Amino acid sequence: MIYITRRLYFNATHKLWNDSWTPEENKRIFGPCANENWHGHNYTLDITVAGNINPETGYVIDLKEIKEIAEKHIISKVDHKNLTLDVDFMKGLNPTTEVLAIKFWEILYPLLKRDNACLYEITLYETERQWVSYKGE
Amino acid sequence: MIYITRRLYFNATHKLWNDSWTPEENKRIFGPCANENWHGHNYTLDITVAGNINPETGYVIDLKEIKEIAEKHIISKVDHKNLTLDVDFMKGLNPTTEVLAIKFWEILYPLLKRDNACLYEITLYETERQWVSYKGE
Amino acid sequence: MIYITRRLYFNATHKLWNDSWTPEENKRIFGPCANENWHGHNYTLDITVAGNINPETGYVIDLKEIKEIAEKHIISKVDHKNLTLDVDFMKGLNPTTEVLAIKFWEILYPLLKRDNACLYEITLYETERQWVSYKGE
Amino acid sequence: MIYITRRLYFNATHKLWNDSWTPEENKRIFGPCANENWHGHNYTLDITVAGNINPETGYVIDLKEIKEIAEKHIISKVDHKNLTLDVDFMKGLNPTTEVLAIKFWEILYPLLKRDNACLYEITLYETERQWVSYKGE
Amino acid sequence: MIYITRRLYFNATHKLWNDSWTPEENKRIFGPCANENWHGHNYTLDITVAGNINPETGYVIDLKEIKEIAEKHIISKVDHKNLTLDVDFMKGLNPTTEVLAIKFWEILYPLLKRDNACLYEITLYETERQWVSYKGE
Amino acid sequence: MIYITRRLYFNATHKLWNDSWTPEENKRIFGPCANENWHGHNYTLDITVAGNINPETGYVIDLKEIKEIAEKHIISKVDHKNLTLDVDFMKGLNPTTEVLAIKFWEILYPLLKRDNACLYEITLYETERQWVSYKGE
Repeated sequence: MIYITRRLYFNATHKLWNDSWTPEENKRIFGPCANENWHGHNYTLDITVAGNINPETGYVIDLKEIKEIAEKHIISKVDHKNLTLDVDFMKGLNPTTEVLAIKFWEILYPLLKRDNACLYEITLYETERQWVSYKGE
Repeated sequence: MIYITRRLYFNATHKLWNDSWTPEENKRIFGPCANENWHGHNYTLDITVAGNINPETGYVIDLKEIKEIAEKHIISKVDHKNLTLDVDFMKGLNPTTEVLAIKFWEILYPLLKRDNACLYEITLYETERQWVSYKGE
Repeated sequence: MIYITRRLYFNATHKLWNDSWTPEENKRIFGPCANENWHGHNYTLDITVAGNINPETGYVIDLKEIKEIAEKHIISKVDHKNLTLDVDFMKGLNPTTEVLAIKFWEILYPLLKRDNACLYEITLYETERQWVSYKGE
Repeated sequence: MIYITRRLYFNATHKLWNDSWTPEENKRIFGPCANENWHGHNYTLDITVAGNINPETGYVIDLKEIKEIAEKHIISKVDHKNLTLDVDFMKGLNPTTEVLAIKFWEILYPLLKRDNACLYEITLYETERQWVSYKGE
Repeated sequence: MIYITRRLYFNATHKLWNDSWTPEENKRIFGPCANENWHGHNYTLDITVAGNINPETGYVIDLKEIKEIAEKHIISKVDHKNLTLDVDFMKGLNPTTEVLAIKFWEILYPLLKRDNACLYEITLYETERQWVSYKGE
Repeated sequence: MIYITRRLYFNATHKLWNDSWTPEENKRIFGPCANENWHGHNYTLDITVAGNINPETGYVIDLKEIKEIAEKHIISKVDHKNLTLDVDFMKGLNPTTEVLAIKFWEILYPLLKRDNACLYEITLYETERQWVSYKGE
């Protein structure tokens, strides 16, 4: 068993907001992250697949496959986008880093299932000082 | 003459847009940066002051002064904000990295004028792969 | 279960020293780290909390809580300090990165206990080339 | 139980190649990584040892030991070298990051066995955007 | 006048070698960089253009232009390549970082000439610890 | 004319202090940097030499020369040291980043004088968020 990671990037906008609360409650809980005119981040996304080495290639999985799947199913949908308004799989959800990481896992897990390998961990950095990891536990 | 730099951070949202153009023209020129629902960045701001060392302190300028002035006059106005809608000094301007850097220079230059030193350079990173420097030239 | 991390920084001085050894023994074992006039580091501290998402907020825990607790109980006591002479919880201990990480865990674990979450890991970087992780095992 | 890591660096050249395939098959599978005239990387190697703290030193293991063992048995053999042509323990193997990490583990595991500690993980970065971890599982 | 930079990456192999010297002389002068079986690097290339802002766009130059020109004329020719054997514009030259940076300047200068802007500086990193800048002086 | 830089590292302790002031004045001006029991940093030192390329080697200067000179004359004297108590060339001086950078310049300038090249700039990072550059102006 070996773990292989591909890092990707996207830039997006969001606000943290619970629609069932008043604006005042949202501002009290989420502080400046509830700015009604949005704020944004350069996100960094690490996708880790765990598995056994294919003896023919010396690969667990071709990193190009991870990159192409992630670009098609994640990056193209979130990069230069508004995570609340523009992203189908985030509709009705509060776009915290935690919720984003779990949605990315749900999208990528079936797409990265292989005989010898599967998705092991998603790590999503909102800034260099705060990030989230999810392993489907 | 010695050059001293303080790095600060802010997270903001923007879109690139020329109000005198049609939406189609904006999208053709600015591409995904013209997404009408905005996108965002983690900006990094480097403020460089040049001057002579004060022999009493061994400082050109106390870095705490640069930090406090920048936090009061720049960071508090742009962090977790929409650069187009929320920021008074950006009203009517297209918030490219170039234009932001020049506005930051104009705000900071008089505030950082000292007998032995003055603002020398603003460097503003929009991502780790693209940035702008301005020296008031 | 999801893992969320907040990174903080502090600058401190220390020397590695076992009081029950002679100075020569200390220098033989700890090398330049036993310089009697001290040496110092820019430490980086990553605090990881694991838990379930609160469905109201989309948070495991508000990162501001981690930051405020860590600043009050750790950073304010070690930043710009001498880890051997100035820090109450390090008295009589040899301030290796390992020992520091365990003491930080002991302080933070009860303060970060929540119904849905608790401290999962402390990672402490002494330099970019050497670091320690502790999970309370 | 605590985990301590030492980071090291080396610069090497390689090509990905399966000798039992035709050049065309190699190029189809490995793409530009199969360039017959080689390509290269600045590799970053993180060596993590897990164990109990020695109460006399406050160390799990002296990081200098990890560094000296790794420099003698790994870095001196791969730095400024061709991983396919110059490295005895890679002869006949396809030098993917996965295969390299496992060979490094096999070399370092017996050399880093201690009463209170042993090798826990090898992480090998081929670029800042792709890396592999191996724990001997 | 404002300065705008785009960062790009490539991975390549090379050896430092003067054909008019004996192998022994090459090894004496260039040390491990003269390994006959090559070694390699992850290069980082920063391209800085200086100019005046176009008032219509707020740009000095669209960074996409820098990227596309650099990818077509530089990156596609050096990425996953042998700088000595595979690169037409390096034929007969010793591929030090200095020489590479000057060749990149010569290629990019005419391609990045604009009415309001021109190439100002090339910075080429061979590792995180060594790099070269060239301004056409 | 081309500019070549070598980065080096050292870890040291210091306090900011003017002996002609009272302790209270020192604390008022230098804040936590005047902690009497010291504090410390991981310093990063960039040494830039400017010159013409030697056509025989393709080098401005062999980076190994910069490294060996800097390790002998700077790093060995400041690494794992107290900048106030242990360093001969800092005796009686307040060890701000500014003063350190100028002393490093004075030491390195004559040692790096070559027919085709000379020292161009010293950049000294006290943390990732604050640094100083000196060009002998």
